[in-house]
Amino acid sequence: MVNPLLVSKPYCRLVRLAGAFVAVLATSGPAGADEGVWTFDSPPAETLQSRYGFTPSVDWLDALRLSAVRLGGGSGSFVSADGLVLSNHHVAKGCLQALSTGADDIVRNGFHARTRAEERPCPGLDLRRLESTEDVTARMRAAVKATDDAAATAERNAAIATLERECREKTGLRCEMVTLYRGAFYHLYRYRIWNDVRLVFAPEARLGEFGGDPDNFVFPRFSLDFSLLRVYENGEAVKPAHFLRWAKKGVEDGDLVFAAGHPGSTDRRATVAQVVYDRDIRYPLMLASAKRARKVLEEYSARSPESARRAAEILVSTENWLKATSGAYKALREPELMAAKTDGEARLRKLFVPVAGQTDPWAKIEVATGKRARDAKSRWAIGYGFQTLFGVGGQLVELANETALAESDRLPEYHASRVPQIVHRLSAGRPYYKDLEIARLAGIWQEAIDLLGKDDPFVVRVLGGKTPLAAATAAVEGSRLDQVAERKKLIDGGMAAVMVSTDPLIVLARDVYPLRRRLEKRHEIEVETPTLQAGDELEKIRFALYGKDAYPDATFSLRLSFGKVGGYDADGMLVPFQTNLAGLYARSFAFAGRPPFDLPARWLEKQRDLDLATPLNFVSTLDIIGGNSGSPVVDRNGELVGLIFDGNLEGLGGRYAYTDRKARAIAVDGRAIVEALTKVYGAIPLADELSRR
Amino acid sequence: MVNPLLVSKPYCRLVRLAGAFVAVLATSGPAGADEGVWTFDSPPAETLQSRYGFTPSVDWLDALRLSAVRLGGGSGSFVSADGLVLSNHHVAKGCLQALSTGADDIVRNGFHARTRAEERPCPGLDLRRLESTEDVTARMRAAVKATDDAAATAERNAAIATLERECREKTGLRCEMVTLYRGAFYHLYRYRIWNDVRLVFAPEARLGEFGGDPDNFVFPRFSLDFSLLRVYENGEAVKPAHFLRWAKKGVEDGDLVFAAGHPGSTDRRATVAQVVYDRDIRYPLMLASAKRARKVLEEYSARSPESARRAAEILVSTENWLKATSGAYKALREPELMAAKTDGEARLRKLFVPVAGQTDPWAKIEVATGKRARDAKSRWAIGYGFQTLFGVGGQLVELANETALAESDRLPEYHASRVPQIVHRLSAGRPYYKDLEIARLAGIWQEAIDLLGKDDPFVVRVLGGKTPLAAATAAVEGSRLDQVAERKKLIDGGMAAVMVSTDPLIVLARDVYPLRRRLEKRHEIEVETPTLQAGDELEKIRFALYGKDAYPDATFSLRLSFGKVGGYDADGMLVPFQTNLAGLYARSFAFAGRPPFDLPARWLEKQRDLDLATPLNFVSTLDIIGGNSGSPVVDRNGELVGLIFDGNLEGLGGRYAYTDRKARAIAVDGRAIVEALTKVYGAIPLADELSRR
Repeated sequence: MVNPLLVSKPYCRLVRLAGAFVAVLATSGPAGADEGVWTFDSPPAETLQSRYGFTPSVDWLDALRLSAVRLGGGSGSFVSADGLVLSNHHVAKGCLQALSTGADDIVRNGFHARTRAEERPCPGLDLRRLESTEDVTARMRAAVKATDDAAATAERNAAIATLERECREKTGLRCEMVTLYRGAFYHLYRYRIWNDVRLVFAPEARLGEFGGDPDNFVFPRFSLDFSLLRVYENGEAVKPAHFLRWAKKGVEDGDLVFAAGHPGSTDRRATVAQVVYDRDIRYPLMLASAKRARKVLEEYSARSPESARRAAEILVSTENWLKATSGAYKALREPELMAAKTDGEARLRKLFVPVAGQTDPWAKIEVATGKRARDAKSRWAIGYGFQTLFGVGGQLVELANETALAESDRLPEYHASRVPQIVHRLSAGRPYYKDLEIARLAGIWQEAIDLLGKDDPFVVRVLGGKTPLAAATAAVEGSRLDQVAERKKLIDGGMAAVMVSTDPLIVLARDVYPLRRRLEKRHEIEVETPTLQAGDELEKIRFALYGKDAYPDATFSLRLSFGKVGGYDADGMLVPFQTNLAGLYARSFAFAGRPPFDLPARWLEKQRDLDLATPLNFVSTLDIIGGNSGSPVVDRNGELVGLIFDGNLEGLGGRYAYTDRKARAIAVDGRAIVEALTKVYGAIPLADELSRR
Repeated sequence: MVNPLLVSKPYCRLVRLAGAFVAVLATSGPAGADEGVWTFDSPPAETLQSRYGFTPSVDWLDALRLSAVRLGGGSGSFVSADGLVLSNHHVAKGCLQALSTGADDIVRNGFHARTRAEERPCPGLDLRRLESTEDVTARMRAAVKATDDAAATAERNAAIATLERECREKTGLRCEMVTLYRGAFYHLYRYRIWNDVRLVFAPEARLGEFGGDPDNFVFPRFSLDFSLLRVYENGEAVKPAHFLRWAKKGVEDGDLVFAAGHPGSTDRRATVAQVVYDRDIRYPLMLASAKRARKVLEEYSARSPESARRAAEILVSTENWLKATSGAYKALREPELMAAKTDGEARLRKLFVPVAGQTDPWAKIEVATGKRARDAKSRWAIGYGFQTLFGVGGQLVELANETALAESDRLPEYHASRVPQIVHRLSAGRPYYKDLEIARLAGIWQEAIDLLGKDDPFVVRVLGGKTPLAAATAAVEGSRLDQVAERKKLIDGGMAAVMVSTDPLIVLARDVYPLRRRLEKRHEIEVETPTLQAGDELEKIRFALYGKDAYPDATFSLRLSFGKVGGYDADGMLVPFQTNLAGLYARSFAFAGRPPFDLPARWLEKQRDLDLATPLNFVSTLDIIGGNSGSPVVDRNGELVGLIFDGNLEGLGGRYAYTDRKARAIAVDGRAIVEALTKVYGAIPLADELSRR
């Protein structure tokens, strides 16, 4: 299951992109636009050559790929020979929140380790680098023979598990299967994983998320959304073979740039039926939920300053999710999008010549989507609780039960290759605040009542006749799952420990587990499997029409985007390609320094020391979406010029279609980072480490 | 005739407003919005009290009215006991252009008189202050009895002339009749006139019009659009009894503010037929003309830097005109506007109970508008040339001929009360550049061919079988009307001098005069007179429905607007209520200091001396339109906090309807003026003169 709540994870700031829609529509394919989230083994070489006179060499591609990392829900890159990693402030925010206390609020105040000894491990954060990939489509095809959906699902799961295991045993790396082109290709992705990631530097939240929710998805923008972490192995800083050099010269208007990152998911190859489902069911469900969650969090935050501190990260994530979802929903309802989609599909469909008795793949997807709609509310209501302490209980129960099963029977998220990451996260010593968990869970269960009715089995079980608040209070107050030792005990104890636990959240999770498992397995068999099969057929038709000049929808795996630095005309307002430090002060002054436009005292004191012309943020036509947060932006020389941290409102329809007219990716300019480290934070050794080539 | 080309005059930067439309539509009248361009004798006291708890006293109103002035095509105010007047840079730009030479380009470099002796007279600029008004509606009604349109026109003209003359003789002031509520009321406005206005200070054009055409009508904005002039009488600076005190405290978000200025014209009481005429005939004509004029001026400017300098003012005005007209045209085509207008009119129309044989006033206006449409192209083609040197010839010929007629027969623009201003302008020593005049005239005559065909009598006469360029070259090269002495000789010589002149532009104008006179007179009799009569009837119906809680459409006479300082949400982007000096640098840096975002060297040198938090521009819901440029903005205490210089794009539909959702008036903040005078320009005595209370 793709947890619809990844939005509460940091990478969801970037719920945007741009893309394959044009490719579906135009006979010329994607040429003519800076479109695409390309795999590194199949870069858009011809387009780059024809549009920009640039052909990336194998070395160029390897150096970038092996510097790029995925961490948490976002992206980052190695930027020094001593394992320093650059990412966004908001990607590291989970770590900042976990390390913060009421007495030492590093989310608010920022963090600066002046020595290696002061660098602090980020609980639960892991980091991965893509070492290599392998096309195993042929072996997958050979392994999956059944025509029955249930049998085919089991065969596919078994084959994936086998291939992943073989790969792991052979390479010693973590191997994960990635399904590309919606089922047409299977690639094994081999990752190097590091679990000891330490916080080195983060600016104050006021800089990292300057402008807050009002400025989110907006440009001109003035955010210093970066953080520095260091990767350790056996207690020593790693020495990566590849890291990105800091560009000597920053970006200029019109420059060709690249981003290497992990776009979460796009739906550019979605059929009309799937887009209609998103428009009529998925997004209305998400929007209502996001609004409710925001209200709950705002009410909780209003209780006291400490409450506000505790809820800070998740409230920001929720506001971000709401703004992103609203934007995408607005784009979904544009008649032009649906018209273009319908037209493109009609064109492709003409090419389909059915063999005797064969069903049209679009019709197959429509049937599967109908089944998806049937279970949408139930899956949402149960799944939604999974990001709370209740979800921790659920994951502990599922981990014990699922790992006891054969790979072919497991829910996909508990495949052997995925288990270490789950264990790592559950074992992390991050803080849980029971009052916050109660408030959130009460809201979620009220939502379940509203969605499913009070007689639904899930609702009946979790409430046990109580109000949502009373039920949540009873379950959370009596639980010890907020203690990392308790969680570790249950992980290590496996099935036996989970079955005898009397922790109320574990008891509850044991009863909910069969309900959720049944729904998810049904989804896999009745929705995912036929959709993948139809996707494979669709891809053949598409290739016949457009050739291979295309890229797969995003899958939270490493991709290469390219684009041009450039401003735009926002309905009469000329938006420059970049902002600068003068603009940061200007916007703060314009709102009289009121939050979220306030600046820390040291920033006000240092104003006259700074070169106010220093570029702060810049925009480009890079094709990005949620998951790209923290992606390094490099120039033709492969040198670092900045890092992605957001996209603009005009790009929120990018999940379904790329456009470069006004949609832009927003990046922090590397020069602002050096200027701030040097002149505001007195972090000269760090600035030197970044500049060392 | 209202010259449709007033746009080439500076005040047309402000072709915007907001207004009476809501009043027409809502049974509650204008309450609930900061709407209206109110006469000082009938301020919106109840609305101000109910919305803001403020009732302006008679003294408060008098002090503001007697500090406000009209100058050129815009507005301004007395701001010192020694006759200093504050207005916009762009209102004074005609003066700057007239005083500039290739060797001393004060448009570009700015101007700063360090002593009174250095203050330089502005050729042709006059300034007026409204001393008092008198309602003479009863006398006008008594005088105009005829039912025949031609006779009624003559009666009205005669009555106006008589009343104006009596008033002038009695008061020694210039008296002008102002028709309010589209014909329902006649008021005599009594003005004190000054013709000796001298330039004291103007910033560089780069500051006065920072951001150029791209930023025109845009907010956030960073323009120091102000100038200082001084009024002289008998060689001495005047000592005005009233002048505005500089506010000790600047504006804050939410503050109630007022503007006293001269909005040019609005059409909020226009009928559906009139709005349709504007949409389908007037605006398309203007837009095509503006585009052609811009092209001509751009081509001329490209010839050399000196050409660019010569055409600078008119090119900026033309771009401004084009942007404003495009915005208003876009608003005109919004179905909502037409729907609201149609609905409001239908509501009013139900109340109309015709007396036997009486025609419905809307139908009368529709008939008149049809006649207006008939002559639209001819009037445009002939009138359009009137802003060139060809127009100077035309005005000299018309002045001689019209002033020889009885008042009742004259074209309205040559009524005795208007003659002194025409003479003053024609007698001014402003430069004309023959190559520029030839280029413009050739473009205008080509447009005449395109609009009227090559066989039209006007076209045949002006071209004389030549191409537009050849004809324009012949007429302009041979003319001496660019010399002020020649113009004065023709003014002083009257009809005799004009009739014997062999100056080719005078010869041409003598032949064109009867053509234009016939068209304009027909317009007056067949369009204006019936429209005024119907307007009077409409007003009675409107009063019956909505009471007296309304204000008349703008007439380029003194009005009071009120509004609230405040930002807005521009489709997801939070726009603050103000900008600051940091923002000026930020926008310049963002475009790497490229024009029109370049800053003079002294501004770059003084950056660190300035308090960058100093407010620069601010927005409010003040109801303004073209002509309000330079209007003083005062607070509840009647103290000066800034001056109007523009409106935003969102307000360009304000000619037909006021809205306060996103439409905003843009003002220069007084604090930026003092900061710049003090720290950049070293104009401390001037800053002191402004601050003296």
